[in-house]
Amino acid sequence: MKSYTEYLTFTLPARMAFKNITPTIEEIVAKSGVQEGLLLCNAMHITASVFINDDEPGLLADYARWLEDLAPFDASPERYAHNRTGEDNADAHHKRQIMGREVVVAITQGKLDFGPWEQIFYGEFDGRRPKRVLVKVLGE
Amino acid sequence: MKSYTEYLTFTLPARMAFKNITPTIEEIVAKSGVQEGLLLCNAMHITASVFINDDEPGLLADYARWLEDLAPFDASPERYAHNRTGEDNADAHHKRQIMGREVVVAITQGKLDFGPWEQIFYGEFDGRRPKRVLVKVLGE
Amino acid sequence: MKSYTEYLTFTLPARMAFKNITPTIEEIVAKSGVQEGLLLCNAMHITASVFINDDEPGLLADYARWLEDLAPFDASPERYAHNRTGEDNADAHHKRQIMGREVVVAITQGKLDFGPWEQIFYGEFDGRRPKRVLVKVLGE
Repeated sequence: MKSYTEYLTFTLPARMAFKNITPTIEEIVAKSGVQEGLLLCNAMHITASVFINDDEPGLLADYARWLEDLAPFDASPERYAHNRTGEDNADAHHKRQIMGREVVVAITQGKLDFGPWEQIFYGEFDGRRPKRVLVKVLGE
Repeated sequence: MKSYTEYLTFTLPARMAFKNITPTIEEIVAKSGVQEGLLLCNAMHITASVFINDDEPGLLADYARWLEDLAPFDASPERYAHNRTGEDNADAHHKRQIMGREVVVAITQGKLDFGPWEQIFYGEFDGRRPKRVLVKVLGE
Repeated sequence: MKSYTEYLTFTLPARMAFKNITPTIEEIVAKSGVQEGLLLCNAMHITASVFINDDEPGLLADYARWLEDLAPFDASPERYAHNRTGEDNADAHHKRQIMGREVVVAITQGKLDFGPWEQIFYGEFDGRRPKRVLVKVLGE
């Protein structure tokens, strides 16, 4: 059994933003030498997501507006009890639950075993600072 | 270490529909020969889900209505920027984020290690065409 | 390859409640003897979740109120078709889909490979009775 671990750091320039990280993950799969296995990719911060969907700018804009409807940014401590701690990012903790923390992807014949439109995104909901993503490959 | 991969294809007759695929997944576990391991089952399309919940028709009808409330179908390009591309399925990309892309299930003593009511569903949000689901088993 | 499986039972005293189970999961990792691998932790019941977020009481109160907004408790069979079966917990099946069934966590150098604030929670949406959580470790 082989295992391989890498940590990525992203500093996205906006509070909410999405970045396609698929090319980086493909490089990690190649470096791992794993032919058949599973890959875990997760946000290590609790106001960010890793998810799989379509790399289409309109869709990403739709997600941003929808998430803002479901869990609006509001720095005041009235709407979110979490913001009584001095934080202003309670909304980001909610947005992350909708979009998810992690993806698990099959590796088959040395490659991400993806459907035609699957792309891995880092989703940031409290950005403008460096945050980490973990990638772990297990297999042989 | 053993690994085993299979691809399933489903053509559901409605735009939104749910199909219990547990018996098929159980057959795949048996074919894999894995006694202790993990099973990944994921939609390979980005307008579909794989999720685990109860096989009760009322609940599935409740999910359909709830998802329609949270992300209504609207083919026009006014509500969803994604539909400016000529697609009409932006709602399906949102519904899939609520229900999830994938499940990871333990295999113990050669079987899906499930609680009493756990069933694996394929969730379709833009149906009436063939779409694929990946199943990968890793273990020994 | 090593694998290790354990079942936890929780009886939370409220209908909706959250419990930080990270210390218990850390003990299981130690017992497993796995240095490099993956850990799956999932609710075995379909009205409960396992998720990763911040152990901050205000945030957990925010989650409870938000989930109640997105999928209100209503025992009557009018709002939820599922409750026509005699159940009163359709809301709990919906809340669990938002918060998720499972987490997959990397184990690196014999420990949960976590960011600074990541904590594993059991999320209960139909409590006051014993319910099980599965933990499976795979690696070497």
